[in-house]
Amino acid sequence: MSNFVVKPAKAAARPAQSPSTTPTSYDVAQKAGVSQSAVSRCFRPGSSISPKTRSRVIAAANELGYFPNAMASGLITKRSNLVAVLISNLTNLYYPEVLAEITRRLSDRGIRVLLFALQAESDVDAMLDQVWRYRVDGAIVAARLSPAQLLDFTRHRVPVVLYNRFGEGAPVPSVCCDSMGGERQLVERLIAAGHEVFGIISGPDDSYVSQERVRGAEHWLRESGREAVLVKGAFDYESGDAGLRALMEMTDRKLDALICANDLMAIGAIDCARTHFGIAVPQDLSVVGFDGVAPAEWASYRLSTVRQPVRRMTEAAVSMLIERINDPDLPPEVRTFAGAFIEGTSARFDARADSPA
Amino acid sequence: MSNFVVKPAKAAARPAQSPSTTPTSYDVAQKAGVSQSAVSRCFRPGSSISPKTRSRVIAAANELGYFPNAMASGLITKRSNLVAVLISNLTNLYYPEVLAEITRRLSDRGIRVLLFALQAESDVDAMLDQVWRYRVDGAIVAARLSPAQLLDFTRHRVPVVLYNRFGEGAPVPSVCCDSMGGERQLVERLIAAGHEVFGIISGPDDSYVSQERVRGAEHWLRESGREAVLVKGAFDYESGDAGLRALMEMTDRKLDALICANDLMAIGAIDCARTHFGIAVPQDLSVVGFDGVAPAEWASYRLSTVRQPVRRMTEAAVSMLIERINDPDLPPEVRTFAGAFIEGTSARFDARADSPA
Repeated sequence: MSNFVVKPAKAAARPAQSPSTTPTSYDVAQKAGVSQSAVSRCFRPGSSISPKTRSRVIAAANELGYFPNAMASGLITKRSNLVAVLISNLTNLYYPEVLAEITRRLSDRGIRVLLFALQAESDVDAMLDQVWRYRVDGAIVAARLSPAQLLDFTRHRVPVVLYNRFGEGAPVPSVCCDSMGGERQLVERLIAAGHEVFGIISGPDDSYVSQERVRGAEHWLRESGREAVLVKGAFDYESGDAGLRALMEMTDRKLDALICANDLMAIGAIDCARTHFGIAVPQDLSVVGFDGVAPAEWASYRLSTVRQPVRRMTEAAVSMLIERINDPDLPPEVRTFAGAFIEGTSARFDARADSPA
Repeated sequence: MSNFVVKPAKAAARPAQSPSTTPTSYDVAQKAGVSQSAVSRCFRPGSSISPKTRSRVIAAANELGYFPNAMASGLITKRSNLVAVLISNLTNLYYPEVLAEITRRLSDRGIRVLLFALQAESDVDAMLDQVWRYRVDGAIVAARLSPAQLLDFTRHRVPVVLYNRFGEGAPVPSVCCDSMGGERQLVERLIAAGHEVFGIISGPDDSYVSQERVRGAEHWLRESGREAVLVKGAFDYESGDAGLRALMEMTDRKLDALICANDLMAIGAIDCARTHFGIAVPQDLSVVGFDGVAPAEWASYRLSTVRQPVRRMTEAAVSMLIERINDPDLPPEVRTFAGAFIEGTSARFDARADSPA
């Protein structure tokens, strides 16, 4: 590692005014020979101004290095054009795609993202004070909110849309992928193919998404008179590996179907099955995930999973939020999207000739 | 997919004042029976205020639903406590980790991230207008900036730190991983192990990181009298696959070492070698990457690569930026960090008995 200091550049071309003063709309008006109100209109979308005046204002503004202050405009228009995005597990492979899509869609509408990246879902409290301080126009939250925290959004009149979770207690606008229906697609196919000994690796305790998926998997297994051995994971590759090791001990190595609460753990479990136990996937062990992240499609995995329709879901979240910024009295609405079953090759879905089923 | 509307919650407990009016510091001062200046001091970090007054102010503020307005404070203190982060390729597996680390480190210092997620490195122009409008205190940029765009940062007096790229033309504060040194670690070992026919898969044309890594690899190959066949990639899994297919045609399948400009393409190339060509990695083909992303460590790949010290680099970027926010006249400084060589198992680094070398 080397640190070195390079010489400062020669003084760059500076705008005309004193370097310590930020130019104001007054300076621009003086320079352009127009009124201050003309300068304001020039920078306010939808205002009427003649092309000639506009070009004089723009020329003067460029020369002075003037730019309208979004924060000051926000104080006047009561709109900051900022939306808070609270997201946990940015390194979880699913959320970067969600964040990129949400940011792009808001940006297309002239709205900026104030990012709050949480270490854990339950880490929200410390962030909320900051959300209120920046007078965001609204918030999209992919993290766990308590009923009291949700009430705070109401008190601060900040419209909120939950992503992949429901409000607990009171109804809250939210966009979800249907966990119950998604697990049904996986579990019913696994049962039809004759699998008998089921294991489940859950996500972390404070994850709503994990709870819903595990609840779904257990529900559909019970419907067919099956039970599963459950071990706790953390939504990461390592806990897929550790989870399979634990299950192999608990089931005396008879495990023949493994349901993972997300793709990343399924990938960890597949690698562990092959390299640690020498188990063939899917011939001797079927492994399924949930999410449809990019690595699930890689040739080493070809994961059998349920893909969340991220584009439709993020578009829904953004348009629901904007509707509520424009009309805060809209009633809560929950939009639930079905996930797409991806057959993949990590699970056996055909009934075997020698199967007892 | 089902959409359904749920009934609105019963009117939640509302703060005392009219729902259409946001409470001000004046309202809080009245309710608490203190001066408006006491309310301001209560919410300004480092201001002196008695514990008794503070608790009265907090109680009144909570009851009224008052929160200090960060944007209004910003107009007074000339600090928005916002830092713009411009980042391209959020779905590239390397950048989510960088973004999460930068966001956490800024957040620890009470600074929020205004996120600009670019579709391509060259997509910066449209974003910059927004950067100026929000009067950010500074910017961290992991995207390509032209000399004119860099000059704009000077004109708008927004301190900037570049992440993994240098300023073109004038020196600019930047944090980099040493591409030349990293490629040297890979190339010299590959040559020592007797590899003869080299291929390189680059990143996209507008990527500075790709240019530096390819330049480094070609330089160290030339130093040993070797050349490489170069094909163009896009930093994604698919272009690793496509790149290997192209190279196998161009080299009449004699390729024995593949240098990929990032890990994700190396992973795509390994999967292609194994599943499409039936080539054993590393016995018949050595594949190396660059970055050290999480999937590079997965058991299916165990990539031979150079890992960027993301924590040290993000900490350096954040502290350099904060120094320059506090003192805009500090000279530009470039901090270059060495990457760590990760041996992995995707490349053969031992000299073969039958090797001609």
